[in-house]
Amino acid sequence: MNEFELIARYFTASHYGSNVLLGVGDDAAVVDVPNGFNLVTSVDTIVEGVHFPNNSDAGDIAYRALAVNLSDMAAMGAIPKWFTLSLCIPAANESWIAKFSKSLQQLAQQYQVQLIGGDTVKGPLNISIQMLGIVESNRWLVRSGAKPNDLIVVSGVPGEAAGGLQLLLNPPVAQAATDSVNHTTVRPELVEGSHSEHLINRFLRPTPRIELGRGLRSHASAAMDVSDGLLTDLRKLCAASGCGAQLQLEQLPVSVALNALFATERVQQLKLSGGDDYELLFTIPPQSLSALEDISAIARVPCTVIGNIIQGPGVECFRHHQPVVITDTGFDHFSV
Amino acid sequence: MNEFELIARYFTASHYGSNVLLGVGDDAAVVDVPNGFNLVTSVDTIVEGVHFPNNSDAGDIAYRALAVNLSDMAAMGAIPKWFTLSLCIPAANESWIAKFSKSLQQLAQQYQVQLIGGDTVKGPLNISIQMLGIVESNRWLVRSGAKPNDLIVVSGVPGEAAGGLQLLLNPPVAQAATDSVNHTTVRPELVEGSHSEHLINRFLRPTPRIELGRGLRSHASAAMDVSDGLLTDLRKLCAASGCGAQLQLEQLPVSVALNALFATERVQQLKLSGGDDYELLFTIPPQSLSALEDISAIARVPCTVIGNIIQGPGVECFRHHQPVVITDTGFDHFSV
Repeated sequence: MNEFELIARYFTASHYGSNVLLGVGDDAAVVDVPNGFNLVTSVDTIVEGVHFPNNSDAGDIAYRALAVNLSDMAAMGAIPKWFTLSLCIPAANESWIAKFSKSLQQLAQQYQVQLIGGDTVKGPLNISIQMLGIVESNRWLVRSGAKPNDLIVVSGVPGEAAGGLQLLLNPPVAQAATDSVNHTTVRPELVEGSHSEHLINRFLRPTPRIELGRGLRSHASAAMDVSDGLLTDLRKLCAASGCGAQLQLEQLPVSVALNALFATERVQQLKLSGGDDYELLFTIPPQSLSALEDISAIARVPCTVIGNIIQGPGVECFRHHQPVVITDTGFDHFSV
Repeated sequence: MNEFELIARYFTASHYGSNVLLGVGDDAAVVDVPNGFNLVTSVDTIVEGVHFPNNSDAGDIAYRALAVNLSDMAAMGAIPKWFTLSLCIPAANESWIAKFSKSLQQLAQQYQVQLIGGDTVKGPLNISIQMLGIVESNRWLVRSGAKPNDLIVVSGVPGEAAGGLQLLLNPPVAQAATDSVNHTTVRPELVEGSHSEHLINRFLRPTPRIELGRGLRSHASAAMDVSDGLLTDLRKLCAASGCGAQLQLEQLPVSVALNALFATERVQQLKLSGGDDYELLFTIPPQSLSALEDISAIARVPCTVIGNIIQGPGVECFRHHQPVVITDTGFDHFSV
């Protein structure tokens, strides 16, 4: 199978949406951005051994690559529309590519986005997706609009993805033994409905919060997605907004699964510093709290107030009104 | 230097064009596609050891990564406007990044495109650029419009880039000795104005033919850029257009530099099968030939008629009206 056959078989759509004027197969794709909308674009790259464990399942890799990019659209309040894929793989292993493609297309269909172009190259496994979305003119969400007295809110349960990654990297002994025999995947055999399965799925299959992001456009003063850890990302939001934050640790969403599998201190560390959740972190003025309840219900994701914005820089942590010093920081590729 | 500092210092513009509504630093960038234009997007990825030799100069790598993407816009007749960068590097080596960034920004400025977002990750060297351009509604160039009797035209001198790559990979002995002492770059010391320098520059610093592409919109029936070799790419153009081609080998542009440094047979092989030229390969109806002369003069790049489109599939080669069988094919990452 050569590169052209590979692209034709696995990455070309039989039908494109009406906004796609030219899809996969030419030097570039052409799309129509509707009047009254701006174009929103982001790129996120995932690398084997850095963003996902070596020998991860091709379907999980594809899901993750697309999901983290959809999450950027969610953080902007945008409607994801199209994407391009740069797929760098060591060899054209057809069963791997078939699995990758199937998972990618499934998630794409679920979020009604279309693959319109890409590049397939040989090299160490690296998947880069460029997402293109649209948003009503001048109605996107930014990181920089938080104001003192705004409430800080997070969707879902931060820390669970990092807990899942821990389980993947250090599976229970029985599973590790299985893995040494079967090198095809590091995903351990999991009991359905177990806490381990839940956490690992939060890592491997994060849920882009598109509907939540759309709903927040009229209410959130600032928004971003949590990829590098709650504390690190909140610091970024505060820095962009020129303000500070007070975080109430006891208000952080409770994870039954994390509590069952990790010690209390480690749970707090995962919640504050674990990355990869792809939940939305945002700020709203207090008067928007009841609107948020409706938005959260429609988007079917719990949203939890975890603190408030203050004047001045930095993030301060409290537990039951007592200051707590947190030394652990979030994930930075170039400092680890 | 952490990831955030790196991005802030080297990849954030002090000033964005008026169409950039939100630049580097948020979850995504937001741009305004003007009324009457469609959005054109492409992605091209280059990998160390595959698309450029190991230890290549950071400035050369940056130039190449951007130029090959600009070339896709040229092939569409589009105006390149914005791009995002996915930079996967083994370590945050500041002098490398500074060099990379400087070269990238220089070329970006020359072509009036702006870096509006990206992702910086740790891993084996891999640079992926997503280019965004605009084109007047329904006025882009495609590969699929060639018709029997159209003339086949190529810009510049195909084969020179592949000759340059040969010289880089197998430098003359004296230069190889220098390289073993100085591991910082594989670019050999070159005599200014020499044939070697010329060829190596064609590989390292291809010229995106934006102005030519723009001019061709009213005349070319099909267009693409030559990245995988003239024959391979012409076959793709023919397949997309549902037609065939007759190539007149003696009409291929003459390269003084290739002729001086390579044997005659090798020169032909480089011209037909060498990739990386990023010249435009296009077809025009015979009556557009005089218009092409003007366009070529304005774009300041020679354009050479090298054959004609015929009915039926495949590319036939002739030399002085005698059929010639060519067995060598172009570059395919997954078949080499």
